[in-house]
Amino acid sequence: MNDMEARIRASFDRQSMMRTLGATLTAVAPGQVTISAPILPGALQQHGAGHAGLTFSIGDSAAGYAALSLMPETAEVMTVEMKINLMSPALGESLIAEGRVIRPGRRILVVAADVWAVTGASRKHVAMLQGTMIPV
Amino acid sequence: MNDMEARIRASFDRQSMMRTLGATLTAVAPGQVTISAPILPGALQQHGAGHAGLTFSIGDSAAGYAALSLMPETAEVMTVEMKINLMSPALGESLIAEGRVIRPGRRILVVAADVWAVTGASRKHVAMLQGTMIPV
Amino acid sequence: MNDMEARIRASFDRQSMMRTLGATLTAVAPGQVTISAPILPGALQQHGAGHAGLTFSIGDSAAGYAALSLMPETAEVMTVEMKINLMSPALGESLIAEGRVIRPGRRILVVAADVWAVTGASRKHVAMLQGTMIPV
Amino acid sequence: MNDMEARIRASFDRQSMMRTLGATLTAVAPGQVTISAPILPGALQQHGAGHAGLTFSIGDSAAGYAALSLMPETAEVMTVEMKINLMSPALGESLIAEGRVIRPGRRILVVAADVWAVTGASRKHVAMLQGTMIPV
Repeated sequence: MNDMEARIRASFDRQSMMRTLGATLTAVAPGQVTISAPILPGALQQHGAGHAGLTFSIGDSAAGYAALSLMPETAEVMTVEMKINLMSPALGESLIAEGRVIRPGRRILVVAADVWAVTGASRKHVAMLQGTMIPV
Repeated sequence: MNDMEARIRASFDRQSMMRTLGATLTAVAPGQVTISAPILPGALQQHGAGHAGLTFSIGDSAAGYAALSLMPETAEVMTVEMKINLMSPALGESLIAEGRVIRPGRRILVVAADVWAVTGASRKHVAMLQGTMIPV
Repeated sequence: MNDMEARIRASFDRQSMMRTLGATLTAVAPGQVTISAPILPGALQQHGAGHAGLTFSIGDSAAGYAALSLMPETAEVMTVEMKINLMSPALGESLIAEGRVIRPGRRILVVAADVWAVTGASRKHVAMLQGTMIPV
Repeated sequence: MNDMEARIRASFDRQSMMRTLGATLTAVAPGQVTISAPILPGALQQHGAGHAGLTFSIGDSAAGYAALSLMPETAEVMTVEMKINLMSPALGESLIAEGRVIRPGRRILVVAADVWAVTGASRKHVAMLQGTMIPV
């Protein structure tokens, strides 16, 4: 594990929301971060699918850590804004959020993420996020 | 409590995510719904503020139930898309999300929500959401 | 006309797009700017209503100048991102875009705008915008 | 030219806004449409770059026609909402907007578009759009 990955894993471990949701960092590369989470019984909406807040939480964190992976060692990033299109109910065994940096600016980073619902060997595209991060 | 409010409270109680976040429905009126939540130790980001996913979850649910409050008895609504601008860290004793309907269309409802962080008698505007719901 | 208004009017006059669309600055106050535009024969979509690009253009400029009205004399602002919900076809005699600043930060300004279609003495809410500006 | 392409070209020709901006349909395929436009002297912002309204107009139309390309012959589509992240000033000889369908639902189509500024043989990514269309 390199320094960048170690730094991101340490930050992720401090996000208690990720622990509550059972989320784990499953891949870290420069500009690309993947987070997985089960659809826990405590993270549902009224019809038994994963809550939009679960999908948003891991999508936003995956995009944010993708941004952080490109920053200097001492920097942090913050979400300025995030837009999510929800395309299918979050139904399945787990969710995978793949975050990536589209434009790594000095003052503004444009990021995106896709969230997939996984059932066995198949996966369905449940959400797409597009947003802005700033270094802080 | 009228029928509309009873219907919304029953749906809210089925959202296990709201329970996990400690959220409660604090006001229900036609086209306007308020949700409050403490900033629980298990809902934080890496610097100890409330996670964007917490702010989003209660903002999205407040907007969604504001939409549902205007629908016929048997209808449900679903979030098509939601955009959130995060303006300040979610720091304080609790969060309050005020959802409202901007345009109640037959096929599409345009909704908005504001989220405030409350400390004692003062409150700070931490986020603004704008999105689309559809009847299902 | 004070210095701030003069500065905004001079910048507006350099936006040739506003001239092409026939748009005029109809009100300038700290944090609030209004732009009006006819629905010209050359600014339509395929069914004869105003094009979404017309509605967006004046909404974005109204929000941007609302931000600029709060900046120091030598600053400029740029749109980082803008989200528009289109609620009704842009049909009528003219459009009015009311831009305002929601949060005037040092590094980031959160802005909003509403666009109305005007016919005689009545007006209809056709679009709502929410976005982010940065000083440059 | 097949029926679908003929239908899209006829609709595009009725968008007078595209004519005003000098835009042309440069590619039409199922779920993917490309629109090009010069950066005309009448479509600028205050610093001489293309106005955000120009970038938005061709991005929104490219995404909309990508959606229309997947619809039955008699259908039309309308933009429900569109979000644009502006990543660089629109400077160059022309702009190219590439629209595509991400999820072609029966009631809702999720679409995206990228806009590039072209100078000679090189191009720069100036904007990214993500939005929702509905059949009407």
